[in-house]
Amino acid sequence: MEEQEITVSLSTQKKEKPKSDELQFGRIFTDHMFILDYEEEAGWHSPRIIPYQPLTLDPASIVFHYGQTVFEGLKAYVTKSDEVRLFRPEKNMERLNRSNDRMCIPRVDENLALEAIKKLVSIDKEWIPTAPGTSLYIRPFIISTEPYLGVAPSRSYQFIIILSPVGAYYEEGINPVRIAVEDEFVRAVKGGTGEAKTAGNYASSLKAQELVSDKGYAQVLWLDGVEKKYVEEVGSMNVFFKINGEVITPELNGSILEGVTRSSVIQLLRHWDVPVTERKISMEEVYEAYQRGELEEAFGAGTAAVISPIGELAWKEEKLVINDGITGEIAKKLYDKLTGIQYGTESDPFEWVEVVK
Amino acid sequence: MEEQEITVSLSTQKKEKPKSDELQFGRIFTDHMFILDYEEEAGWHSPRIIPYQPLTLDPASIVFHYGQTVFEGLKAYVTKSDEVRLFRPEKNMERLNRSNDRMCIPRVDENLALEAIKKLVSIDKEWIPTAPGTSLYIRPFIISTEPYLGVAPSRSYQFIIILSPVGAYYEEGINPVRIAVEDEFVRAVKGGTGEAKTAGNYASSLKAQELVSDKGYAQVLWLDGVEKKYVEEVGSMNVFFKINGEVITPELNGSILEGVTRSSVIQLLRHWDVPVTERKISMEEVYEAYQRGELEEAFGAGTAAVISPIGELAWKEEKLVINDGITGEIAKKLYDKLTGIQYGTESDPFEWVEVVK
Repeated sequence: MEEQEITVSLSTQKKEKPKSDELQFGRIFTDHMFILDYEEEAGWHSPRIIPYQPLTLDPASIVFHYGQTVFEGLKAYVTKSDEVRLFRPEKNMERLNRSNDRMCIPRVDENLALEAIKKLVSIDKEWIPTAPGTSLYIRPFIISTEPYLGVAPSRSYQFIIILSPVGAYYEEGINPVRIAVEDEFVRAVKGGTGEAKTAGNYASSLKAQELVSDKGYAQVLWLDGVEKKYVEEVGSMNVFFKINGEVITPELNGSILEGVTRSSVIQLLRHWDVPVTERKISMEEVYEAYQRGELEEAFGAGTAAVISPIGELAWKEEKLVINDGITGEIAKKLYDKLTGIQYGTESDPFEWVEVVK
Repeated sequence: MEEQEITVSLSTQKKEKPKSDELQFGRIFTDHMFILDYEEEAGWHSPRIIPYQPLTLDPASIVFHYGQTVFEGLKAYVTKSDEVRLFRPEKNMERLNRSNDRMCIPRVDENLALEAIKKLVSIDKEWIPTAPGTSLYIRPFIISTEPYLGVAPSRSYQFIIILSPVGAYYEEGINPVRIAVEDEFVRAVKGGTGEAKTAGNYASSLKAQELVSDKGYAQVLWLDGVEKKYVEEVGSMNVFFKINGEVITPELNGSILEGVTRSSVIQLLRHWDVPVTERKISMEEVYEAYQRGELEEAFGAGTAAVISPIGELAWKEEKLVINDGITGEIAKKLYDKLTGIQYGTESDPFEWVEVVK
């Protein structure tokens, strides 16, 4: 692929930046955005950074009707020495292309995409919040723009990157959450789109999430769509259980998203010589371990919260209170190490960090 | 709900209309569109017909990221005496609201939506093509417009209706198609969104469709996502098998879309005293019937093609040629009766037709 130059058109009107301590998740956006166009004949072309602005799309655009779209999520962090850092961004771009394959969207040049992220973050660098736990959330996404009502892959697309300064996921730092095991609704099934980061998986999760929220739970724990027996994910995170000294996470099976934080957790645990296994694990097995007093910890892992300890797990008529409802040792250690690497206060043994010049 | 007046702003520049014999499906749109807005505080408000124009949306709008969207599809037909007719439009509006429930979208006023369809079709009446088999395709859809990257139901929406003059689905009238049974990819699963008309179901079908197209098949026949054993749908149609005099269609199970044509077919068959059963039916059973010489017909039923006979069904290593690859008697009779009712050449015993004044 030919090298493509990213053109830049700077905003003349700068928006007011939010206070670091008033930040929420994903509600405020920076001054600029990145766009790359695709048409069948031209391929991906015209990479450009422009002022943040509305998209203008034909109402018949395929994305509105058939949801042919993929996205990614990662963060930029600023260190005390004012260095801007990304965490394993190349993993996100690899996954973006895997999602593209599943959704019949043409692959993007991962190097160009990475360069676009860095250039955009560097232009909107002043938007990166500095308070502890805050960061700049980066949302690359691709939408299908052909105005056509036939059910077929689009012949035109836009690859867009937007940035949002976000607060600490938990205002008071890492804190256990209450999770309900979902036994009616299904997020994804083998043969479906569960391992792709695509809109439909999230749309289908809204109803279950709404119902458990009404009962006071933060998220649902998804079971497999076939037998409703095996653990898959928690909310939009991967999930880990520590049972009798061993950390277990569901193996990738086609319906589970391959999280970047998930793979980092596995690598760190191995580095620390903590036994970690990727395999099928049923709720029955989790419950039995709990009854034997061997369910030592449970936690979610994802870009937004990094590590999210599970303090209580509601399953059928049972309520499993895990580690007395407080954050476990491994969860805390992983959270500290991962955020330490991200914010530059811990060593980075695997060279996960990429510095934005 | 208070009666809301639909305001009309007519286009000053009329587009050129396509020739009736050059029409494709869903590529050309009429001069006007309908929009209705929703915000949490105001509810659905400001129904209006305006010139067909692009939508202007924040790039963070939920629809682009999490696919919270629903749609419908129906047609307007013009008779030889210049009467404009809709086919069971109230069924589509009922289904739209069922889809809304599943996707956490606020319900729309079905009467207002029907009035909007009629008013819009009547304003763009000259766009309804008159050649045999042509019609005006009506696409109501709802998109989530809140600029927010959290995974949660949107707090704002737009309900939009666009119109597209479409050609006969089969240029040479009703014609059998070749279908491949899909045994890797899954369209939907119980507990998922299969019975809702929402983007994600269609996005997840693209890959399988692309792979079978390459092998010369028109569509895939979807099996259930749990056991990959029971027949669900064909492409984006419901499916029927005639075995030893009895017509069988998969029963609604949560992952099958409840088609308006499906229900009309069942009603007509009962009216004609043809035995018709809604139940689980496995591909094994279809194959065994075929081997015994009892698989007399197979066909799909949906708004786009009305009735689509299946001439060949590829399953594993087998190729089932059904009714010598020609259109069966029941499929033909259903097609003639349904299109006859739609175009006003046949009696309408169930009062399915709604005339647009």
